[in-house]
Order: sequence, then C-alpha cells, then structure tokens
Amino acid sequence: MPSRPGEDELIARFFAPLAGPAGLGLLDDAALLEPPPGDDLVLTTDALVAGVHFFTDDPPGAIARKALRVNLSDLAAKGARPLGFLLALALPGDWREDWLNAFAAGLGADASAYGCPLAGGDTVATPGPLTLSVTAFGAVPAGRMARRSGVRPGDRIYVTGTIGDAAIGLGIRLGRGPEIPKADKQFLLDRYLLPQPRVALAKAIAMHAHGCMDISDGFVGDLTKMLALSGVTARVPVYRLPLSQAGRAAIAAKPDLFVVAAIGGDDYELLAAIAPDSAPAFEAEANAAGIPVHCVAEAIEGYDPPRFIGPDGGQVTFPRGSYSHF
Amino acid sequence: MPSRPGEDELIARFFAPLAGPAGLGLLDDAALLEPPPGDDLVLTTDALVAGVHFFTDDPPGAIARKALRVNLSDLAAKGARPLGFLLALALPGDWREDWLNAFAAGLGADASAYGCPLAGGDTVATPGPLTLSVTAFGAVPAGRMARRSGVRPGDRIYVTGTIGDAAIGLGIRLGRGPEIPKADKQFLLDRYLLPQPRVALAKAIAMHAHGCMDISDGFVGDLTKMLALSGVTARVPVYRLPLSQAGRAAIAAKPDLFVVAAIGGDDYELLAAIAPDSAPAFEAEANAAGIPVHCVAEAIEGYDPPRFIGPDGGQVTFPRGSYSHF
Repeated sequence: MPSRPGEDELIARFFAPLAGPAGLGLLDDAALLEPPPGDDLVLTTDALVAGVHFFTDDPPGAIARKALRVNLSDLAAKGARPLGFLLALALPGDWREDWLNAFAAGLGADASAYGCPLAGGDTVATPGPLTLSVTAFGAVPAGRMARRSGVRPGDRIYVTGTIGDAAIGLGIRLGRGPEIPKADKQFLLDRYLLPQPRVALAKAIAMHAHGCMDISDGFVGDLTKMLALSGVTARVPVYRLPLSQAGRAAIAAKPDLFVVAAIGGDDYELLAAIAPDSAPAFEAEANAAGIPVHCVAEAIEGYDPPRFIGPDGGQVTFPRGSYSHF
Repeated sequence: MPSRPGEDELIARFFAPLAGPAGLGLLDDAALLEPPPGDDLVLTTDALVAGVHFFTDDPPGAIARKALRVNLSDLAAKGARPLGFLLALALPGDWREDWLNAFAAGLGADASAYGCPLAGGDTVATPGPLTLSVTAFGAVPAGRMARRSGVRPGDRIYVTGTIGDAAIGLGIRLGRGPEIPKADKQFLLDRYLLPQPRVALAKAIAMHAHGCMDISDGFVGDLTKMLALSGVTARVPVYRLPLSQAGRAAIAAKPDLFVVAAIGGDDYELLAAIAPDSAPAFEAEANAAGIPVHCVAEAIEGYDPPRFIGPDGGQVTFPRGSYSHF
C-alpha cells in the first residue's frame, strides 16, 4: 500500500488552501472571528452520511458542495450572509488521494463562489461510511434574523425557485423515473445532486421577511411546521405550486409524482413570509438578484394546520407531512 | 419493535431542554448569537467516532461529555470563555431511548457546569458507528486570542495538571495496564474517559499567554508543533514532567510507560507560553482557579526541534512525535 499522508499533511495539502483569514492557515486549535460591528451572528450545522444523504459514488466535488450548500441555505433562510464554515470530516480507511483532491476542489469552488471560506475543522478516521458535518456561520443586521416563528396574519407566503425537482430527481437516480426527455432527467438529477442555496436573497430576507425557513424536508411539511410555530394557518392552492418545466414533464408522464414534488425533500428553496406592504420591494429585490419568487398562500389567523386545495376547490391530503430521518 | 420518536420529537425530548437562548428552543434553522461587545469569537470543531475516539460501551453520558470537553479544551487554550455549542449527531439504527436519555443527561450536566449551552445541531441516521461533531464557540477580549504560533524566546513554557494519565489509562482500558492499586487504575481510567478542560484558566491565558495550545496528541508532539509554529526551540528536562501519583505508580511498575506518558494523547492539558514578567501573575491566577501549573521549559531562539533531556543530561528521543489519526 502506498504511504498515506498524516493528518497534518492531509490538512496542509487539501484543506489549508481553502482557508480564509479566520482559519489562521488551519494551523491553530480554533478559528478566530472578529464579529462584524452591528451584526448578529447566525450559526448552523448539518451532517451528511454516505448512503443516507448522498450516494457513495456521487462525484466527490458534488458531495463537498452539497454539504456546504445545505448550510448556506440555512443561513440564507435566516437572512444571513456567509462568513465562513468549519468542516468535520470522518474518512473511511479506503479514501484515495484523487477522491480527496476532487472533494477539496469542489469545496474550494463553492467556498469561493459563495464568499464562505473554510475557517477550521477536524479530520478523523472512521470504520463506517464517510460522514461530514459542516458548521456555517454568517452575519445578519442586529435584530433582523428571520425566524421560523415570525409569520403574521396577512403575510404573503413566497417560495423561491421551483418545488419538487430534487425529490423527483432522487426517484430518477433510484431508477423509478418517468419516461421523459433526457435533458429533463438530467436537470432533475442535478437538482437532487446539487442544491442552489438562495444566498443572493439573504439581504432581502433580512430586510423584509417576518418569517422564513428553507425547504429541506418537503414543501408541505415545512410549510406546516413554519405556520404552526407562528401560530397562523393558510389555504394553499397546491396546484399553483411553482414547478420546473422538467418537473411538469415528469408529473405529466406520471401524475403520482405531484405528491412526491409536494412532500419530497431536498428542495433547499426558501419559504418567506412578507407583509403585503413589503411585497413589491421584496419581489423587486428578488428579481434583481435573479431569483424567481412565487406567492403561494396568505397567512391567516388560526391554529389549524394549513389546508391544501386542489384545482376543483376540494381539500387535498398528503400521505405524510414531511420527510423524517428516523 | 416499539415505535421510535421522529426527528422533531427526538430533538424536543432529548435536546431542547439543553438549549440556551441562542438555541431558540431548537425550533429554528439556526442559532442566533449577539456577539459580546469588545470580544473576538473563537470557533472550534472536533469529531468523535465510536470505536475510534471512545469505546462503544463507554457510559453514554461520558461520551457526550468528552465530545463537549475536547472542544472546551480548545476554547480554553485560546483564552476564550465558552458561549455555546452545536452538536451534529449521527445515530446508528439500534439506538435506544435509555441510551439517549443518559447521553443527553451527561451533555446537559456539562453544558450547565461549564456555562456552555446547546445552541443548535443536527441529528441524522447512520448505518455506521455513532459519530458526534461538536462545534463550540467562545469569546476572548479583542486581539487577545492565544495562538499556537505566538511563543517568544524567553517565554516560560507551562503545562497544566499532569501529563500522560489518559494514555496510561487507555492502556489499562485495553488490558495492558501495570499492576498497581485499584484506586490508581481507576484514576487513570477516569482521566482517559473524561478529560478536564481547563476552562477556568481561560482568562489567565487571554491575559498573559503569548502562545498556547491544548495537548490532545501528546506532550512531546504538541510541544514540538507549537515551538515550530512559533519559530523557537527549547531544552526540555522531560524527567521533570508533572506526573500524577497514579501515573508515577504506573511508571514505577512498568518503566516503559514513561514514554507512553510523554507521547500519548488525550491529556487535554494546556501548554502555555508566558513572559517571565507575567509569570508570577499567571501562577497566582492559576492557583486562584485551582489549576496546578508547572514550568517545564524556557523558549529559546532557534528553529531546531526541541531537545528532550533525561536525568543524566543526555538527549532522549521518542519513537514518534505525536499521535496521528491516519
């Protein structure tokens, strides 16, 4: 067996080049952050396990980018701009240098693209599957973090982008996909493989949103959760959910996929509650940031779960509200 | 099989009671931290894998506490007082509620004892071993973080507590231990199981230390690393290393254990470089905090690795410098 680099060499070769100023060259016990004056800090962590949150044979760069992006999505949902991240990486014994090179290259590309440099981490060996935990931290103007619980009656509920692509894409990845054109399949597969965190919308969220969360566990479940935490409800015409062209094609070929789109996870789009007065400015800023937003409901007083309405005006019920990890 | 709580219920039952104000009841996407005015923030992450960093049958409360404490040790080494932590927990499928109850109880006890509440986290399923990543964050007066690279010629190098107990304790845990009294064995086993992070020394480190790091990978290797990063060297009379009474008993029974003590990991004591002028104040503050400190060397100019000196004045070499995870 060729000799392996030790932990310090591994960090120096693969990860130190990704470090920002807070990372101190990854040569210290910890990262050092001078908090931006006038801001609150937002911290979030997400863990990904090979075979659970991604496929072991996914491209290593995509695995790294997904791990960072799901955390960037949380920051964006809180209205926070990224400042940096820490990575805890548990590597199985059979890791290869070319794999780690590609992993670090993907991580570096996103760290650079999103302005979120590596600030520190830990690399350990595991007899189990590759496991990554990213902790990202960001800054939001003091007092402006958008809570899940902040939705008020009368707020318009917006979603960014399109819903359900990743869940349909996962089905395609598992060989359950509908017969649709190859380009549509690829689009949906890519949406599963690589979420698009709405970092560019963070400022508008901080400025305008009463409440916000990212949709990681499915539109229906996450909306239900946000409204419940806010003590409001809604009537949601689900047939007007924003779908991609590929998503529509998939649902046309296999109508059951509409339910998959509505309740499936991994969208990493945002649900944002905006007061009607702020809606024009929010829409204009989203437009300027190149992020499509669609109003899908209006929050109303009441503690009942939201009602999802079909095209015939009748209530639609879903088999389960949300993705559960257990 | 009895029904299992879902992820939200699991968080609500086991972890939400541990949340501090920054954790927002663990009901949001992220933690919210108002940075203490005039402070820099210090962030650190450490991952622990069952079967690698602890024994699968260790008491669950001790596993939780060790995961938090190794991070608190990093904060202390930087002179930072703890503010909170995030926990990413990858749970194997066979987890039991009584196990998780005990885990959360241990975590909560330390979070309370060290003033470091839970601020957020992520709980996922894994087909592999239990894996924990803790990210702890703390505050240090602006500009006062003690770097590994800050040691200056003339500084006195102090170590806290005693060296080697955990490494000898690990040997006992593995059945390789020497014949020593049961109470000594238990002391050494406990030192391996449950490190004592030197949180109470953080303020004195921030006030007085030119450089500092915690000893996680062994005294010899970590001292060598800190001096190299600082561009200084030292002559270290290793026979004067502070040893516990139990450690001395173990070495008396099996002299090879001295090397284990000097190079073995998991001490989680601090190495602090203090200018001679500051030494009396540092010693007085350590004494007031109840933390023994011993001066083990003086930093001198030069880029050579430190020389370790035996009782006969001759140089001692060690089989390897430091614990490597790979």
